[in-house]
Amino acid sequence: MSNALTLDIPAGMPWIDFTREFDAPVGAVFNAHRDPDLVSQWLGPRGYEMVVERWDFTTGGGYRYLHRNPDGMEFGFRGTFHTVRENDLAIQTFEYDGAPDEVSIDFMWFEDLGGGRTRLHGRSIGRTVEGRDAMLDSGMEKGMAEGYERLDDLVAQAG
Amino acid sequence: MSNALTLDIPAGMPWIDFTREFDAPVGAVFNAHRDPDLVSQWLGPRGYEMVVERWDFTTGGGYRYLHRNPDGMEFGFRGTFHTVRENDLAIQTFEYDGAPDEVSIDFMWFEDLGGGRTRLHGRSIGRTVEGRDAMLDSGMEKGMAEGYERLDDLVAQAG
Repeated sequence: MSNALTLDIPAGMPWIDFTREFDAPVGAVFNAHRDPDLVSQWLGPRGYEMVVERWDFTTGGGYRYLHRNPDGMEFGFRGTFHTVRENDLAIQTFEYDGAPDEVSIDFMWFEDLGGGRTRLHGRSIGRTVEGRDAMLDSGMEKGMAEGYERLDDLVAQAG
Repeated sequence: MSNALTLDIPAGMPWIDFTREFDAPVGAVFNAHRDPDLVSQWLGPRGYEMVVERWDFTTGGGYRYLHRNPDGMEFGFRGTFHTVRENDLAIQTFEYDGAPDEVSIDFMWFEDLGGGRTRLHGRSIGRTVEGRDAMLDSGMEKGMAEGYERLDDLVAQAG
């Protein structure tokens, strides 16, 4: 059974907090975020293909990728990595091509729980409360939940 | 007489909105943000020296600079540029070395008012309400106001 994704969505604020635990060491979870060959195997909803155009998971780096759904529709995303600290923290910007200039800033803390377990805690802050709500309405929670289930499988294979 | 800096600081929210008009064409105001030799002449409070280590004002670029006060104390800042569109929009991250990982995302819209006048409108969004308030307590408003008065002088010289 996989661990649950917990979202905290305060009314009237522009951010979403999330927490997800993994039965895998912090190094494995972090590496699954850093290595584009691994990222493309789990990030996004089930049934989507991820095409990574750029993935430079380093401080000052950036990314661009497409998600292609089973009908062949493509959804593009891009951003910069403000901070990447190994097994600790990633701070990035995030923009969906379909909502131009509605850029969020996303914080992700990687916490070593010991015993080969990891907690991922994140905060995603939109430009407006309405932008945050639109992100939620786009099916963000389902996409995240499915992505992290795929990440469970990926790190289990590696272990 | 210079134009006024207007801040809008909603209670309980993590952002600051600001507006400032300039008696200068949008191209001049934008260029004073893009060209590091110009930026270093106006950004920051009066009496501070600005040392630009990196200033790549392009989409996906980044920056790092130091402000040195009259006593020789140095204050470092860095970030990435998520979006830069000429005479239109800049979206960047912003971090002060003295408040590590308290990264804000800053939006700046350049609006051509016609008749050689420009309105700059910005929103700076902190990670927390407390982080936003700490930024204000650091003398942000005075530093911005003085910086934009220096920018007035700079674009007047260019005109």
